Amino acid sequence: MGIDLSQITAIGFDADDTLWVNETYFRQTEEAFGMLLSAYETPNQIDQLLFLKEMENLPKYGYGIKGFVLSMIECALEVSRGKISSDDLNQILQWGKDMIEHPVELLPGVPEVLAALSKTHRLLVLTKGDLLDQERKLARSGLDPFFHHVEVLSDKQPQNYQGLLDHLAIDPKNFLMVGNSIKSDILPVLSIGGQAVHIPFHTTWQHELVTPSDGDTFFTIDQMLDLLPLLKR
Amino acid sequence: MGIDLSQITAIGFDADDTLWVNETYFRQTEEAFGMLLSAYETPNQIDQLLFLKEMENLPKYGYGIKGFVLSMIECALEVSRGKISSDDLNQILQWGKDMIEHPVELLPGVPEVLAALSKTHRLLVLTKGDLLDQERKLARSGLDPFFHHVEVLSDKQPQNYQGLLDHLAIDPKNFLMVGNSIKSDILPVLSIGGQAVHIPFHTTWQHELVTPSDGDTFFTIDQMLDLLPLLKR
Repeated sequence: MGIDLSQITAIGFDADDTLWVNETYFRQTEEAFGMLLSAYETPNQIDQLLFLKEMENLPKYGYGIKGFVLSMIECALEVSRGKISSDDLNQILQWGKDMIEHPVELLPGVPEVLAALSKTHRLLVLTKGDLLDQERKLARSGLDPFFHHVEVLSDKQPQNYQGLLDHLAIDPKNFLMVGNSIKSDILPVLSIGGQAVHIPFHTTWQHELVTPSDGDTFFTIDQMLDLLPLLKR
Repeated sequence: MGIDLSQITAIGFDADDTLWVNETYFRQTEEAFGMLLSAYETPNQIDQLLFLKEMENLPKYGYGIKGFVLSMIECALEVSRGKISSDDLNQILQWGKDMIEHPVELLPGVPEVLAALSKTHRLLVLTKGDLLDQERKLARSGLDPFFHHVEVLSDKQPQNYQGLLDHLAIDPKNFLMVGNSIKSDILPVLSIGGQAVHIPFHTTWQHELVTPSDGDTFFTIDQMLDLLPLLKR
């Protein structure tokens, strides 16, 4: 491949589903939500309605667990035509709290790779979602000391990346982004002249799914540990 | 007063209830919430229960409208002993969306003062709350061009201020914070060696109320316009 990573001095890491497990808990909750409402609709139908509700609310609520819970409640009231019990609504609220309190599960190889790369590169966390939630996960992860800078972005459009790199005085040609979402972590970084490594996570939220076009050039690796040989070539 | 502001080079502004109206919408919604549940409890009792619920949930939800809505729903289910109607629950969800979409109402003198001070000082926005929400309000306010840096903090403890000033290479002795909350905007900044100007807003959330002790030295002014003569002395 014609990609040269020798000039990379700063590496940005997505957090959810790149450093630690996240989407899995959303999927588990969605599944439980489908079961909870199974008296009113098929799980498949509920899943689709919830996704539509989330997309409709995304401009208002943004990313994160709280907006997800609010969308579940709205969807539950609609699907059940107002018949959902208060116990079930309390259950939905409790799922949200459980997700917020969930222990951080690091993905394989993450601490080792960060420890190694922090000696040679400036490492950043670039994530979207809820500010408090992401700060808490980072604190619990024990990974904080490896990072020069942590930025929670309200979105990951090219202008969000460009603004941050400007602020940190990093030239995009010296910047590599590592993440699981082609839409949020790879394509916007390529579009501003940076490089990117894609590490697919087994589960990707429908909202994050895109098909890259032929001109997009980036690495895809199986797991975080494969990043080291890539940067040492 | 023995306070010298001649060495101030950077000024941080709180946003909610300092640059624009915020608490008022929460109070209006709390009042409507009390009316909505008036069949079950007295407004005063509901108000207290909602506040307790918010305090209980604050470590999980953080500051902002979404957490407030989730706490209202939880409180409504509890106060009504599960009898609240789905229409009323939808009403609560709608209040949250209305708050999020509310037009920004600038406080008197704000654009003029920022325009003047941006020529002589480095201006920052330092706010807590929901990231997307605060970014949206700033964009809608038209105040964005006056600021060198905008930071949404998950909390406003001394270490949050210290970390940010370190990051921006600002010595606390050159830093002045302007805000409506003695607890969040004044005392933590004084404690790290910065200066502070308090502009009381007519309404302050109970959670933000503290009594400063005798040793705390800061200015109190009536309105934003009074900041200019203070800095020109």
